[in-house]
Amino acid sequence: MYGNIRVELNHNGKTMPNLEENLGFGKHFTAHMFMMDYEEGTGWHDPRIIPYGPISHDPAAMVFHYGQAVFEGMKAFRTESDEVVLFRPDQNAKRLNRSSERLSIPQIDEEFVVAAIQQLVRIDAAWVPKKKGSSLYIRPFVIATEAILGVRPAMQYSFIIIMSPVDAYYEEGLQPVNILVESYFSRSVRGGTGDAKAAGNYAGSLKAQTLAKEHNCAQVLWLDAIEKKYLEEVGSMNVFFKINGEVVTPSLSGSILEGITRGSIIHLLKDWGIPVTERKISIDDIVEAHANGSLEEAFGTGTAAVVSPIGSLLWNGTPMVINQGKTGELVEKLYATITGIQSGKLPDTYGWLLKV
Amino acid sequence: MYGNIRVELNHNGKTMPNLEENLGFGKHFTAHMFMMDYEEGTGWHDPRIIPYGPISHDPAAMVFHYGQAVFEGMKAFRTESDEVVLFRPDQNAKRLNRSSERLSIPQIDEEFVVAAIQQLVRIDAAWVPKKKGSSLYIRPFVIATEAILGVRPAMQYSFIIIMSPVDAYYEEGLQPVNILVESYFSRSVRGGTGDAKAAGNYAGSLKAQTLAKEHNCAQVLWLDAIEKKYLEEVGSMNVFFKINGEVVTPSLSGSILEGITRGSIIHLLKDWGIPVTERKISIDDIVEAHANGSLEEAFGTGTAAVVSPIGSLLWNGTPMVINQGKTGELVEKLYATITGIQSGKLPDTYGWLLKV
Repeated sequence: MYGNIRVELNHNGKTMPNLEENLGFGKHFTAHMFMMDYEEGTGWHDPRIIPYGPISHDPAAMVFHYGQAVFEGMKAFRTESDEVVLFRPDQNAKRLNRSSERLSIPQIDEEFVVAAIQQLVRIDAAWVPKKKGSSLYIRPFVIATEAILGVRPAMQYSFIIIMSPVDAYYEEGLQPVNILVESYFSRSVRGGTGDAKAAGNYAGSLKAQTLAKEHNCAQVLWLDAIEKKYLEEVGSMNVFFKINGEVVTPSLSGSILEGITRGSIIHLLKDWGIPVTERKISIDDIVEAHANGSLEEAFGTGTAAVVSPIGSLLWNGTPMVINQGKTGELVEKLYATITGIQSGKLPDTYGWLLKV
Repeated sequence: MYGNIRVELNHNGKTMPNLEENLGFGKHFTAHMFMMDYEEGTGWHDPRIIPYGPISHDPAAMVFHYGQAVFEGMKAFRTESDEVVLFRPDQNAKRLNRSSERLSIPQIDEEFVVAAIQQLVRIDAAWVPKKKGSSLYIRPFVIATEAILGVRPAMQYSFIIIMSPVDAYYEEGLQPVNILVESYFSRSVRGGTGDAKAAGNYAGSLKAQTLAKEHNCAQVLWLDAIEKKYLEEVGSMNVFFKINGEVVTPSLSGSILEGITRGSIIHLLKDWGIPVTERKISIDDIVEAHANGSLEEAFGTGTAAVVSPIGSLLWNGTPMVINQGKTGELVEKLYATITGIQSGKLPDTYGWLLKV
C-alpha cells in the first residue's frame, strides 16, 4: 500500500527535553516525522520518515487560503512494564477519513495509517515519557498543498504525522474547572463541519474561548446554533452529566465531534451497568437538575485530558456550582480506569491497546 | 508604521506568461510578494517586498492545524490610458481587519495595507494585463505561524500579499449559469464565521460545490442553516434578484460576507433611482415570483466575476429558468458600469479608483 516507508534517520540528533520535567502540551517535538504526498492521478505516494523540520510551500498553497485541512489527536503511552502502546489508533484512522470525506480530501488506507504511526513511534520510542500521566501526543494531519487560488478541492496534499511528549493534563490530580455557557457564538450547525476534525472549526472557536477566560472560565459550553438551547461540546471536548444516577451526553447531531474518549466512556459505563443515554440535552434540563439537586456530576472528555471535571457552569451571569466544585466519584473512577488501562496497571479487557 | 518596507528585487527575473493568452485564475504569480511578521510583544514588523517563492514553516505551525487564517481578494486594472488603478482597496483593508477580529488575529493598520499593496503593484506593474476584462488579482492573507499544538490564538503570524494576472471571468461576455439551491449543507450560521473571510469557510463549502457540479450546476445557492429557508450567498458571491422592478439582496445577517462588489452595486442602483432593498428573502419568495412571472433577473456579485447572471435555479429537483436563461438588462448595465469604471472608459464618479 503506497509503497514501503522510506526511512531517513536524523543523524544530527535532536536535543530531547528532560522528560521528567515540565513538558507542557505540544511544545516539544520528536526527532522524526512521517510524510506522504498525494497527487491527483498518482494517488498517495512516497511515504517516508524523515528528520523533524520545516516544510516549505508555495504561498498560494490552498491550506493557507481555504483551510482545507483535517487532523487527529492520539497518544502513545509507556506502560509500567516499559512497553509502548497506542490507545485505539484504528478509531483515529477511521475518523481521519470521515473528516477528510467532509472536507473533500482523499481517503487514506486506515491500516496503513496505523502502521505508519507504529513505525514512527518505534523510531522515536525514547521520546515516550515515563512520568505518571505523561504520554507521547501524536498529531496526524492532512493539508492541501496545491498552489492555485481557484476555490475547488485541491489536487495535491500532504499527510504528515508529528509527535510531542506531553505532561499529564492534570499533574496533581483532577482539577474541576469553571465553564462559561456560550449564548452568542456558535461552533457549528447541521450541514456544517462540526462533526469533522476540520482546521477551521478551531479557528472559529478562539474568540469565544478568549471571552471565557475573561470570565475566569477555562472554556465554553457550546449551545446548538439553531435554538441556542441544546448542549453540544465543552471547548473541544465532549460533555457528560450525571443526573439522578443516570449519565447523559448529547447525541451525535451532525454538529458534534464523535470523540474516541466519549465512545470509550459510554462503553465502560454500559459495562459497569450504569445507565447512560445519548440524547438532546437542553440547558434548561441542566438548570432544572441543578435547582432540584439531582445534578450530581459534569465533565468533559477528550484525548488531551481524558476527563475534565466541571466545577461550575456560568449561565446568564450566574454560576451553577456542581458537586460543591469538587471532583465527583464517577469521573474519578473513569479517569482511573482509562489511565489505568493506558498505563498497563489495569488489564486491557476491551482490546483497546496496540503494542508498538 | 511598522518601519519602512524593505525591497529585495528579484534579480533572477521570473518568466511572465503571455498576458494576451489564456491566464486562468490564480495560476500564475508575479515576480514579487509582500511579507510582514507579527510576534506577540513586538507587534507587526519587518515589512518587506521579496522575490516570490516558497515559505517555510514548522509542521506544528497553527495554520496547518487550526485554520487560523483570513484573506482578501481585490484587483488592479490597467486603464485605457495605461494607468494602473486599484478598485476600492480601503474597503478590503477594512474587511481584512473585521475578519481578523473574528478569528482572534491581530489588526493591521489599514492605510499601511493599502500602501503596501500600492508599492507591490508598482514593482510588478508589468504584470498587470491589458487585454479587455483581464486584471491583476491581489491576494492579501494572514496566517498563524506559531509552532504549538495548544488550541488558543497564536502569538506569531505572517501577513503576505501575492498577485496573479487573471483573465476576464467571462471571456465572451456574460454567461448565465445554473445554480443548485442547497438544502442539506450549511455554509455558516449566526455566531459563526460566515461574515468573515475565514479560510475554514471555504473548505467547508467544497463538498456542496462538488455536488452542484454533479447536477450540472456551477455553484450552490446557500440557505440559512436555521430554517433552511432564507437565501444567503451563491457560491462565494453575494446574490441579487430583480422582482417586479425592485432589486432585493439578503440583508447582512451575521452569516453573510459583506461583499465590496455588493456594496458598489447597491450604491449604483440607488444612484440610478432603481429601488433596492436589503431584506430577508426566502426561497418561497423566489418560487412565488418565478411562478407569477415577476422574477425578472437573478445574479451573483463578487470580485472575481463582478456579476454572474443566474440562468436557472435548481430547487427540489425542478429548474426554475430565469429570464429565459438569458443575461438580463440590469446585470448587463451593472457589468458595463463597473468594468467601465475599472478600465477608465467611464469617469470615476464615486472616487472608487486609487492610482498605483
